[in-house]
Amino acid sequence: MQDVQNTPAGIPLAIDRVGVKDLRFPLLVQDRERGHQHTVSRVDMFVDLPAHFKGTHMSRFVEVLQDFSGILDYPNFKNLLREVRQRLQAHRAHLSFSFPYFLHQNAPVSASASLMDYQCTLHGELDDADQLRMFLQVQVPVMTVCPCSLAIADEGAHSQRAMVTMNCRFAGMLWLEDLIHIGQHAASCQVHSLLKREDEKFVTEKAFATPTFVEDVVRNAAHQLQSHELISWFRVEVESFESIHNHSAYACIEAPGSQTGAGQ
Amino acid sequence: MQDVQNTPAGIPLAIDRVGVKDLRFPLLVQDRERGHQHTVSRVDMFVDLPAHFKGTHMSRFVEVLQDFSGILDYPNFKNLLREVRQRLQAHRAHLSFSFPYFLHQNAPVSASASLMDYQCTLHGELDDADQLRMFLQVQVPVMTVCPCSLAIADEGAHSQRAMVTMNCRFAGMLWLEDLIHIGQHAASCQVHSLLKREDEKFVTEKAFATPTFVEDVVRNAAHQLQSHELISWFRVEVESFESIHNHSAYACIEAPGSQTGAGQ
Amino acid sequence: MQDVQNTPAGIPLAIDRVGVKDLRFPLLVQDRERGHQHTVSRVDMFVDLPAHFKGTHMSRFVEVLQDFSGILDYPNFKNLLREVRQRLQAHRAHLSFSFPYFLHQNAPVSASASLMDYQCTLHGELDDADQLRMFLQVQVPVMTVCPCSLAIADEGAHSQRAMVTMNCRFAGMLWLEDLIHIGQHAASCQVHSLLKREDEKFVTEKAFATPTFVEDVVRNAAHQLQSHELISWFRVEVESFESIHNHSAYACIEAPGSQTGAGQ
Amino acid sequence: MQDVQNTPAGIPLAIDRVGVKDLRFPLLVQDRERGHQHTVSRVDMFVDLPAHFKGTHMSRFVEVLQDFSGILDYPNFKNLLREVRQRLQAHRAHLSFSFPYFLHQNAPVSASASLMDYQCTLHGELDDADQLRMFLQVQVPVMTVCPCSLAIADEGAHSQRAMVTMNCRFAGMLWLEDLIHIGQHAASCQVHSLLKREDEKFVTEKAFATPTFVEDVVRNAAHQLQSHELISWFRVEVESFESIHNHSAYACIEAPGSQTGAGQ
Repeated sequence: MQDVQNTPAGIPLAIDRVGVKDLRFPLLVQDRERGHQHTVSRVDMFVDLPAHFKGTHMSRFVEVLQDFSGILDYPNFKNLLREVRQRLQAHRAHLSFSFPYFLHQNAPVSASASLMDYQCTLHGELDDADQLRMFLQVQVPVMTVCPCSLAIADEGAHSQRAMVTMNCRFAGMLWLEDLIHIGQHAASCQVHSLLKREDEKFVTEKAFATPTFVEDVVRNAAHQLQSHELISWFRVEVESFESIHNHSAYACIEAPGSQTGAGQ
Repeated sequence: MQDVQNTPAGIPLAIDRVGVKDLRFPLLVQDRERGHQHTVSRVDMFVDLPAHFKGTHMSRFVEVLQDFSGILDYPNFKNLLREVRQRLQAHRAHLSFSFPYFLHQNAPVSASASLMDYQCTLHGELDDADQLRMFLQVQVPVMTVCPCSLAIADEGAHSQRAMVTMNCRFAGMLWLEDLIHIGQHAASCQVHSLLKREDEKFVTEKAFATPTFVEDVVRNAAHQLQSHELISWFRVEVESFESIHNHSAYACIEAPGSQTGAGQ
Repeated sequence: MQDVQNTPAGIPLAIDRVGVKDLRFPLLVQDRERGHQHTVSRVDMFVDLPAHFKGTHMSRFVEVLQDFSGILDYPNFKNLLREVRQRLQAHRAHLSFSFPYFLHQNAPVSASASLMDYQCTLHGELDDADQLRMFLQVQVPVMTVCPCSLAIADEGAHSQRAMVTMNCRFAGMLWLEDLIHIGQHAASCQVHSLLKREDEKFVTEKAFATPTFVEDVVRNAAHQLQSHELISWFRVEVESFESIHNHSAYACIEAPGSQTGAGQ
Repeated sequence: MQDVQNTPAGIPLAIDRVGVKDLRFPLLVQDRERGHQHTVSRVDMFVDLPAHFKGTHMSRFVEVLQDFSGILDYPNFKNLLREVRQRLQAHRAHLSFSFPYFLHQNAPVSASASLMDYQCTLHGELDDADQLRMFLQVQVPVMTVCPCSLAIADEGAHSQRAMVTMNCRFAGMLWLEDLIHIGQHAASCQVHSLLKREDEKFVTEKAFATPTFVEDVVRNAAHQLQSHELISWFRVEVESFESIHNHSAYACIEAPGSQTGAGQ
């Protein structure tokens, strides 16, 4: 049968990224406490395409994914990228897995156990010198109590859920748990799945003792990301779903990290 | 050219609703204060299809919509439904417009003016006896302060944004403003686009003086909807995006209203 | 500490459903071929609330969920509902798990193996007579080739992805695989994750030999659902993301099934 | 009342962008054919914040927006940015409006008139030297017919809806219509709201006479964007919602344009 993809391109322009997007695939992800955990991911897989080829071979991306065991660790991730680059005869390969990750928590007073989920994305780019650039994004829901409202009101202060989104370039083994921990401690209080009455009292009081603007949260997170030895670049965004408005407050810091080997 | 739609159905089953979904169309909506306002809607248009017809004629729905002036009032809405029913040779026609609607607000202390948006859906069904059943759905974002957290914490209480979704069957002219007003006053406080410092103080104190569970909000709204003379049935849902959790609290009441002419 | 929820309601209206919404929880789901599979779900848990109670106890829902093994089978599902009803001292309990489910497929010619995902929701309602009503919803992406376009064009016909959404009330053990199979065979062709060139040829030709309107797809699925012995009621919706338009074609049939024990 | 925002920052880090997100606001947008048109936008407004200030004043963003006439043209857009920068005492201001834009179309054979909508975003950044960088993003839904499927199948070829997303840095007056036109002509065929039978025949045959991979579409659009005299940089992405799969094919080209005055 004809291989239309291998015919010359009508317009000979190089394509930066071409491939498949939004596949779903089950994963086994490394878990610092419990060894590993099962989850389900969205997958994107791209390569570059030189100017003279009409098309890439989309089915080969899916073949590479289907041959993957689903065990997401560093060697497998790099091998997947190599496999993609080689099977597609490309210079560069890109791969992203986006998945919910669960942590076992204990409530602060009752110690009641529950599971909290965090949306994570691991993204990698492998070039033809076999250099791997890795990015980890973690989204951590938190609570913010407004310092201004607290200062001016005779009673109370508005609070709300906010989302801390950290995206880091890193080298070595950066645990999801590290980023989740940074997010949880950047705001007025972390959020929990299960809180009994004594926990709700504790959480409320803790949050009101630690009022934070989005500006405070983004700086707290940036400060911790900056000093993490495996991170060479980061962007942290905070979106606070204001309870007194129908819009969000937002803040963003993008900066180099302290890890220097990988450059940016 | 062949009219495939008019050939017999392979499996002669009557179809309840068939048509087009998710068109976008600009509207001019009636505004109680200012006469009318411009907005943009999502449109669904359906008819029933008897068992013996293979297909409906999808392009006719779009023709009816394109001939529409965009002025959304009762006569035009009913005429559109009649037009759909007739052009598609159907027994029943269904039509929905979903759009953001803006209200001019003044902040509670500074009286600063701003616009707040509410997502609204007008849905109508016209049968072959020319009986029109109309439904209006309005989504009103509000603020809830947790009564439990307020009672047990030494300081503060968690608050959050919540959404009140009211869906009403009605007769006559039911103003969007009526439903928005009910939603705004069902919770700890309404939300605003623009609040200066003195307004934020007022809003915080008002909300903390009126703590509400989702159960309180749903009952407050239901109580008002029950006594509205144009409403013959309603469902009110409240979803509170808890600031201490990564999940929502939810409550729902569905009940007949006090309007009796239209039945249910 | 004060139990605010147990104080009298300000407005004594019964609440139909109150509880928690949009929790995420890992599941182990029964798999007809392989015993079971790991996935991740969204969870909703509700009860009714009598008119005289101010509030329900939201943390108890989460406690019930956290005590759940995550093994989703009939006895566990019913036990969870009983647990919710009892712990919340309610008359009725509602429980929904929504999750992606994966099937191993072979491509039609090359037999290349791959995973396809289908979004599924299991919903149950348990009343105070311990009667359990169960609903299963499955979403099956398919391909439709337009019969009209095929009949009138000198060459080709527009095709597109469509979604078949089947929601069934059932008794006994209804396999996800049964509903997925019905959806896959209701349209011009099922969709696949991995197709090599010979498979793409086969799929294209098969789809063009079986052109279907949304009306055909909804009737094909309804016909199969009607004759399934475990189904007592169903609603099937088909939404086709038309490739020649920026809107969808849509059809819906809602009807009783052939299973009679459960009533509706 | 206390101005908490003006107190020193706990962690003296400069913030890149801080402000309000996801406000809704009605607009009057310039329309090349008809002068102007009404639409509704999502609005984001940000500034930078020096390291030593604890917080920005969120309400001032909303005040600036509420004072805006809603008439979106170049002078007003730049004035808004200046107003934001000045009111917030910032070095840089960022402003985005995202809105559906409607074009009147005639069907290719019957000439039947209808409205098609395109999602557009205008983004601007103003620095303290009063230099304005402007970006326009337009999303154009199109139809793709697969060249491979067409070449190898005895009959037919799979087609699907695809989305062309063009994001351009530009100088001067870049019409939305220019970008929409580029997107419409980059694929197998543009999509329409209203097609009668003779139009559907024409569209099908035209699309099958012009089969395109995502690689073809992205190159066609890039080629046109490169030669547009007002564009100094662009990124074009194409996502094709494959009708034979449950995932997308994707391609992206990012490149400098031919406009040189603005640099990048």
